[in-house]
Amino acid sequence: MQGVAQAGADGLLVTHLPNVYYLCGFTGSTGALLVESGRVTLFTDGRYAIQSREEVRHARVRVTRGSSLAAVGEYLRKGKKARMALDPAHLSVAEKSVLRRAAGRKMRWLARGGLVEELRAVKDAQEIVRMRSAARLGCIVFEEILPLVKPGVRELELAAEIEYRMRRRGAAGPAFDTIVASGTRAALPHARPTAKRLRKNELVVLDLGAILAHYCCDLTRTVYLGRAPARIRRWYQAVEEAKAAALEALRAGVAAGEVDAAARRVLRRSRLGQYFVHSTGHGLGLEVHEEPRLARGQRKLIRAGNVVTLEPGIYVEGVGGIRLEDDVAVFSDRNEVLTSAPRRFLEL
Amino acid sequence: MQGVAQAGADGLLVTHLPNVYYLCGFTGSTGALLVESGRVTLFTDGRYAIQSREEVRHARVRVTRGSSLAAVGEYLRKGKKARMALDPAHLSVAEKSVLRRAAGRKMRWLARGGLVEELRAVKDAQEIVRMRSAARLGCIVFEEILPLVKPGVRELELAAEIEYRMRRRGAAGPAFDTIVASGTRAALPHARPTAKRLRKNELVVLDLGAILAHYCCDLTRTVYLGRAPARIRRWYQAVEEAKAAALEALRAGVAAGEVDAAARRVLRRSRLGQYFVHSTGHGLGLEVHEEPRLARGQRKLIRAGNVVTLEPGIYVEGVGGIRLEDDVAVFSDRNEVLTSAPRRFLEL
Repeated sequence: MQGVAQAGADGLLVTHLPNVYYLCGFTGSTGALLVESGRVTLFTDGRYAIQSREEVRHARVRVTRGSSLAAVGEYLRKGKKARMALDPAHLSVAEKSVLRRAAGRKMRWLARGGLVEELRAVKDAQEIVRMRSAARLGCIVFEEILPLVKPGVRELELAAEIEYRMRRRGAAGPAFDTIVASGTRAALPHARPTAKRLRKNELVVLDLGAILAHYCCDLTRTVYLGRAPARIRRWYQAVEEAKAAALEALRAGVAAGEVDAAARRVLRRSRLGQYFVHSTGHGLGLEVHEEPRLARGQRKLIRAGNVVTLEPGIYVEGVGGIRLEDDVAVFSDRNEVLTSAPRRFLEL
Repeated sequence: MQGVAQAGADGLLVTHLPNVYYLCGFTGSTGALLVESGRVTLFTDGRYAIQSREEVRHARVRVTRGSSLAAVGEYLRKGKKARMALDPAHLSVAEKSVLRRAAGRKMRWLARGGLVEELRAVKDAQEIVRMRSAARLGCIVFEEILPLVKPGVRELELAAEIEYRMRRRGAAGPAFDTIVASGTRAALPHARPTAKRLRKNELVVLDLGAILAHYCCDLTRTVYLGRAPARIRRWYQAVEEAKAAALEALRAGVAAGEVDAAARRVLRRSRLGQYFVHSTGHGLGLEVHEEPRLARGQRKLIRAGNVVTLEPGIYVEGVGGIRLEDDVAVFSDRNEVLTSAPRRFLEL
């Protein structure tokens, strides 16, 4: 990894599991990958002795007794390396202490955040293929459950149906807790599904994501049960236009914050700006929230190979909410919207 | 919280979300709770403005723009407190930097791990009621899916059925990724379900947990498809005996390590000790892994109100594995096994 040398380090300790998977294929729940020039070593414990042997590519495996981080430290203490980089966002203060104690005082630890995330943000052709499949699965599930979205059904039941159908179609599971938020609960951007039953004349926000072959999709649609009042239709229209404006702004070379600004501008023009309480989107891949972040003031440039969500929304306390979300792959010359679920306002 | 004063601090910053929920009822995904004498404050962001108002008890809410930790730091900078405790296991190195920068140099941060976890390890009567319900739900689901455990079905399909049925019965979701591991895959203690189909003459490990009203259950059973060879039956018998020995050893006042040793002794006597590659159990509650840990050498004493799993297992590469797990509540005068799923060897 070029970034490591540039960072002035002899190597990089990778502790964030999606990064470990990305670099060596290991899917266990405990492990640390030490990247040195010419040598990559996965440290994991006895539970993963067999599994790591089956999965790991491009790295040796050391099965440790007890803490893998302590083992990394002891290994480094015996070696000649003097400066190791690590990502401070993915190591707890307590883990750092274990590492420091085991490695000894001579080792200098350099805080270098996001090196692997930078690599992951740019998807290669094979990753795009997987993300297309994940997005397709999400959309199929959405269309499958639409007939079930009707008065009387509980939010929790719908969420269960959604996740069940994902898995039946091969997903490892949901990429995040499925959101089914109806009526005034739709005004909570991160509502958990409850035992509340859907009622006529309510908005229903459905936000779902599946993990297929390790890659995530993330899809939101908002529907109305019954015939919507004119105000709600206007809101829907405005959110859809905000998403379209973000898609228009999204291309390699622009600042991520510009994409956010494009969506925000549309909602502000419709006097809905104050109801848009989160950012416009985020990168998507092995994790459901990755680089780049499409948020206010983000100067990082969009690159070909980025896959992001576009998901403007408005949340009006006491009334409800509307969020619309698609997944989009950025290429050098065009965008590809990976999610094909219907975009028109569905009044069910 | 008494422990805070004992720890020589003016207050405690709680950053681990299950701890935040335990202390104030907030269920959002971002928030930090500052516990000072006479005043408790939840810091969270705009996404949770409405939700926090609905949920939070025993605390004021401050809705922050941007990072909640930066807001905590700025709040403390203006105050008179000089020494704040935090749990280094639940704060990343990067978050600590944000906090330190915002709070200023005068603030001393004391590393005090596990204060809230100590409280949580002892369940009160209402928590035990909830855990009983969660365990019952897990057992009902296990019995429901037993007829589906037969040659031809895929591991992934069974996992989907299990999680679907949990949710249909009111669970918020699985407490962890459901394990369905068949044949030689059963030799992986933390196998993920795959597209592999179950076959005749195989062991199948089913490890499932549901979250019901915030509390987890955790249940493992191992079944055999067909008539098991004598060796496999002996193994099953040994694992069941190891679990019984752990249950026998489990009582208020003994060291947690003693419970582990009791299970280990039985397996060693059956010459299966080397195949028992993990610890005997763990506390269970709002999280699926809590205090106390029933592991080698743990000197912490078991207390009345602890709820723990007992889950010895053996893993034989190339053959398969057997794990059996129950959830047990410890009272001053007796234990209550919360999980009632059948314990006899099922040959399906």
